[in-house]
Amino acid sequence: MSDKTLNDLFLDTLKDIYYAEKQIYRALPKMAKAAQSDQLRAAFEKHHDETEDQIERLEQIFELTGKAARGKKCDAIEGILDEGKEIMEEYEGMPAMDAGLLAAAQAVEHYEISRYGTLKAWAGKLNMNDAVKLLDATLSEEKKTDDTLSKIAASAVNAEAA
Amino acid sequence: MSDKTLNDLFLDTLKDIYYAEKQIYRALPKMAKAAQSDQLRAAFEKHHDETEDQIERLEQIFELTGKAARGKKCDAIEGILDEGKEIMEEYEGMPAMDAGLLAAAQAVEHYEISRYGTLKAWAGKLNMNDAVKLLDATLSEEKKTDDTLSKIAASAVNAEAA
Repeated sequence: MSDKTLNDLFLDTLKDIYYAEKQIYRALPKMAKAAQSDQLRAAFEKHHDETEDQIERLEQIFELTGKAARGKKCDAIEGILDEGKEIMEEYEGMPAMDAGLLAAAQAVEHYEISRYGTLKAWAGKLNMNDAVKLLDATLSEEKKTDDTLSKIAASAVNAEAA
Repeated sequence: MSDKTLNDLFLDTLKDIYYAEKQIYRALPKMAKAAQSDQLRAAFEKHHDETEDQIERLEQIFELTGKAARGKKCDAIEGILDEGKEIMEEYEGMPAMDAGLLAAAQAVEHYEISRYGTLKAWAGKLNMNDAVKLLDATLSEEKKTDDTLSKIAASAVNAEAA
């Protein structure tokens, strides 16, 4: 049994977020369709495009490590997205739908912020400077998306649901 | 079929995080036991005590809403904690164990930060000022815990695993 080092952990976690991003990419159009406000729908559509770039960045990092890009089932994102699906079912046509979608999307963003923050720190320790740059680009996008969602949540959407 | 409003969503999400906190409370001693560094073990033990206070604050909020404190199965935290269990199994006795535990714990913290941020914003919209204060107290603790974990991650723990 070989010693599992930070290199192994980096690769395992890269596979985890690669799987997660692909699931998110599939979920976002459904969330956009369920959104009641144009502003929220537009935010989900924009993030759908960004997610495509983020998947490509992960593929570049796999290339840097010399390993094939491959996902590994990520229980965390499955659970987080399942809660989003539940909201879409239980709040269909209800005044609080958009508030629920926003909460679900922010849980997704925070999972990603946590994973990219961790991967970026590890890439630094492993002296993978190109990977640090790619991970940082995505991390910044995720934080910006979370901010945008917070602003939408603070504005009309939730007030209408109250 | 009644219209589900922000009030319903607030209560549903309160039940979700109440369930999640109780699961986290049960998981933390296992994570503390698995930690290799004293610093990480101490951080998990401290957060275990804080989690007890956080559960009590949620019970106070249930009281404010006039509803019984009751959890609702939270798929997200189940998935996030399952990934932590996987790390504890796969990295047992391995150099990267603490780095993996830190990543798992930060995913938990980010889920909580997202949920408490959402609940605090909703409590504000619903003019539940006492709930806002209680939620803010926990939100600050979760952010501080995440910062502490980031600092531990940046120091010796990950370097040893490299």
